[in-house]
Amino acid sequence: MDYRKESLRLHGEWKGKIEVISTVPVKNKEDLSLAYTPGVAEPCLAISKDVDLSYQYTRRGNLVAVVTDGTAVLGLGDIGPEAGMPVMEGKCVLFKTFGDVDAFPLCVRTKSVDEIVNVVKLLAGSFGGINLEDISAPRCFEIERRLKEECDIPIFHDDQHGTAIVTLAAMINALKLTKKSMKDIEVVVNGSGAAGIAITKLLMAMGLEKVILCDTKGAIYEGRDNLNTEKAEMAKISNLHKKKGLLKDVIVGADVFIGVSAAGMLTKEMVKTMAKDPIIFAMANPTPEIMPDEAMEAGCKVMGTGRSDFPNQINNVLAFPGIFRGALDVRASDINDAMKIAAAEAIASMVSDEELRPDYVIPAPFDPRVGKSVAAAVAEAAKKTGVNRI
Amino acid sequence: MDYRKESLRLHGEWKGKIEVISTVPVKNKEDLSLAYTPGVAEPCLAISKDVDLSYQYTRRGNLVAVVTDGTAVLGLGDIGPEAGMPVMEGKCVLFKTFGDVDAFPLCVRTKSVDEIVNVVKLLAGSFGGINLEDISAPRCFEIERRLKEECDIPIFHDDQHGTAIVTLAAMINALKLTKKSMKDIEVVVNGSGAAGIAITKLLMAMGLEKVILCDTKGAIYEGRDNLNTEKAEMAKISNLHKKKGLLKDVIVGADVFIGVSAAGMLTKEMVKTMAKDPIIFAMANPTPEIMPDEAMEAGCKVMGTGRSDFPNQINNVLAFPGIFRGALDVRASDINDAMKIAAAEAIASMVSDEELRPDYVIPAPFDPRVGKSVAAAVAEAAKKTGVNRI
Repeated sequence: MDYRKESLRLHGEWKGKIEVISTVPVKNKEDLSLAYTPGVAEPCLAISKDVDLSYQYTRRGNLVAVVTDGTAVLGLGDIGPEAGMPVMEGKCVLFKTFGDVDAFPLCVRTKSVDEIVNVVKLLAGSFGGINLEDISAPRCFEIERRLKEECDIPIFHDDQHGTAIVTLAAMINALKLTKKSMKDIEVVVNGSGAAGIAITKLLMAMGLEKVILCDTKGAIYEGRDNLNTEKAEMAKISNLHKKKGLLKDVIVGADVFIGVSAAGMLTKEMVKTMAKDPIIFAMANPTPEIMPDEAMEAGCKVMGTGRSDFPNQINNVLAFPGIFRGALDVRASDINDAMKIAAAEAIASMVSDEELRPDYVIPAPFDPRVGKSVAAAVAEAAKKTGVNRI
Repeated sequence: MDYRKESLRLHGEWKGKIEVISTVPVKNKEDLSLAYTPGVAEPCLAISKDVDLSYQYTRRGNLVAVVTDGTAVLGLGDIGPEAGMPVMEGKCVLFKTFGDVDAFPLCVRTKSVDEIVNVVKLLAGSFGGINLEDISAPRCFEIERRLKEECDIPIFHDDQHGTAIVTLAAMINALKLTKKSMKDIEVVVNGSGAAGIAITKLLMAMGLEKVILCDTKGAIYEGRDNLNTEKAEMAKISNLHKKKGLLKDVIVGADVFIGVSAAGMLTKEMVKTMAKDPIIFAMANPTPEIMPDEAMEAGCKVMGTGRSDFPNQINNVLAFPGIFRGALDVRASDINDAMKIAAAEAIASMVSDEELRPDYVIPAPFDPRVGKSVAAAVAEAAKKTGVNRI
C-alpha cells in the first residue's frame, strides 16, 4: 500500500482524528440546571476558593495540550503551524488510545520563543500537563526550560525525552545480552539536535561518564569551536574523558552507537572498529544511519531502528502515554529525570529474561501492558522525588 | 432539589463534562502508518502548500474555542480563570448537544487586553471560530473588536450577541401580538454592560431610531457626563431622539423595556407609564428587574425573563450552537449583523402564527428544530454578505 496516498484520502474522509464530546446528559431543564446554570455556580465558587479543585471538578486532571509551532514536523522541517496539525491530532489519538489521556492539539502561529512561552504559560490553568511537539532545536530547549520554571504543571518535550527514554529502555536490555555494565560502557551519540542532546543528558543522569555527543564536525568537547549555547553546555557535562575527533575517530572502541542524525552516517568499517558485541540504535528516519543487514555483517550484536519493518523499533509511543498517565494520576508538578529513568526501566522490564533476544530487546508498540506499567512506575518515581501533589 | 448542592456532587463524580476522544482506529501497525507516520506526512505537506486545507484534513472546520479570563462568570463576577471552567465546559456541552460543534474550553491566566488578544490570535490556526465568554465589560468590547480585525476566523462574544439575538427574536414575535411595527417603536434598554450595549447595537442595525440605553445614571445621550469610551460611542449611535433623564423619566411612553441590569429596577408604577400593550424582557439573574406577576398586573402584554421557571425564557442556547454551526458550514470569516439578524428571525419563525401567544413568543431551549433552522439562516446570510469561504 502507498501509505502516504491512502493517508491523504483517509484524512479527507475523517476531517479530523479527534472529537470533543459531551459526557453529561442535557435532555431537559433539570439536566441543564445541573450541568449549567444555576447549579454550575457551586463548583465555580469552590474552585475560586481553592484552585486545586479544578482537578476535581473539571477535565483538567486528565487533560494534556499537545503544542507545536510547526517548525520541525516529522522529517519535513518548518512546514508551518497549521500543517503540523495532522501530526498533533495523531499524537492526541495515541495519548487517548494508549494512556486514556485526553489530549488536545494547539498550533501556535509564531516562532518567537517569548511568545510561545507566554501562550503556554497563560493557558496552563486549562490543562494538567503540556506536551511540546515538533519544535525546532535549539529553540525547543529554551522553551522547555522556561516553561518548566514558570508553570506549575508538567512540561515534556517528547521529541527529546520520549526518544531518550525508549532508547535507554532498549539499551538496558541490550546490555544484559552483551553482559556489560551500564557504568563502564562508552557511548557515542551522533546527532546533536533535540533527541541527541536529551539522550546524552539522560545517560549522564544514569551515571555514565563516557558519553560522546557528536555533531557534523565530530565530538563535542569543552573548548571546541562552533558550539552554540546548548552544545557548549553539553561539552561541560558530557564526554568526561574528553575524546576529540570525527565520528570515525571516536567510534573506535565504543560499546554503543546511538544515531539521531542522517542516513548512511555509520559505515561497516566504523562498526568493525567498535568494542566487542557492539550495540547500534540507528534511528534516522526513514533511512537509518546504517541498515540492519550491514550492521550485523560487520559484527553488531543488537540493532534497533525507528522503523516498524525492522526488529527493535524505538518508538516514542511506548513512553509518552504512560508517562503522562502516571504524572496525571499523582498530579505531578514536573516530569523529572527519576520519572524518565523509571519509565525506561518499566519499558525494559516488559521483555522478560526468557524472551530477551538480540532481535527483541524492546516491546512492540502495541503491547497493551506497556502504558499501565510505565504509568505505575512514573507515579511511584514522582512520589519518591516528592513532585506528586496527591 | 437543591441544584447547586447536587451540581457540586455531580461535578465531583463527572470530573469534567467533556472528553477528547479518538475517532480513528489504532489497532495495528497499518492503522498507525495511516493515522500517524509515515502516512500523515502527506496531509501535512498538502496543508503546508495551502493552509485552507487544514479545514479539510484536520478537525479545525468543526472546532470552536470557548475562551474566558474568568472576570465575569455568571453573576459571580471575577472569580478567576480556572474557576470559570465548569461554565466553559458546560458551554462546550451545549455547543456539541445543540449544534454538533466541537468546542474546547480555554481559560487564560491574565486580565490584560493585549495578552488575551495575543493568545487568541496566536491560536487562531487551531480553530474554526472563537467564542468569547464571561469577560468583563468594557474590556470585552476591545478584545472582540481587535480580534475581529486581526483574525481570519469568526469571533463571537456570546454574552453580548447571543443575548441580543434571542432578545430580538422574542421582540419580533411580541410585536406581532401588539401589532406594532419594529421601526416605529421606542425601546428602553436598562443596563449598559456587554449585553445592553450589544442589544442596543443590534436594534440600531435593524433600523430602529428610538432606542434609549440607560446606565445607573439614566439615559445615555451625547454630551452626558460620566461616559466611558464605549458609552460615549453608544451616545453617538443610539437615542437619536436625544431623550434625557432617569429610567423613570425615559420609560414614559416606551413600547419595550429590556432589562439586563439588576433585581427590582422596574416598578409597577413605571410600567403603568409605558405605551399601550408594553413588552417587557426583564433578564436580570436570578431575580428579574420586575417579577412577571407584578408586570402583568401593571398592564404588561408580553413578559419574558432569563429564567426557566417563567414563560418566555430568553436563553442564549437558542442562538450560539446554530450560529457557529452555520458559520462553520460555510467557513465564514466573520459573524456579522446580517447573520445575527438572520439568526433572530429564524428563532422567531419557530413559533407559528397559530401558536403565538403572550406566554409563548420564543421556542423552548430544548426545541430540536432551532439549531438546524438557525444554522441554515446564518449560512445563507453569510453567503449573501459574502463572508462565506465555501
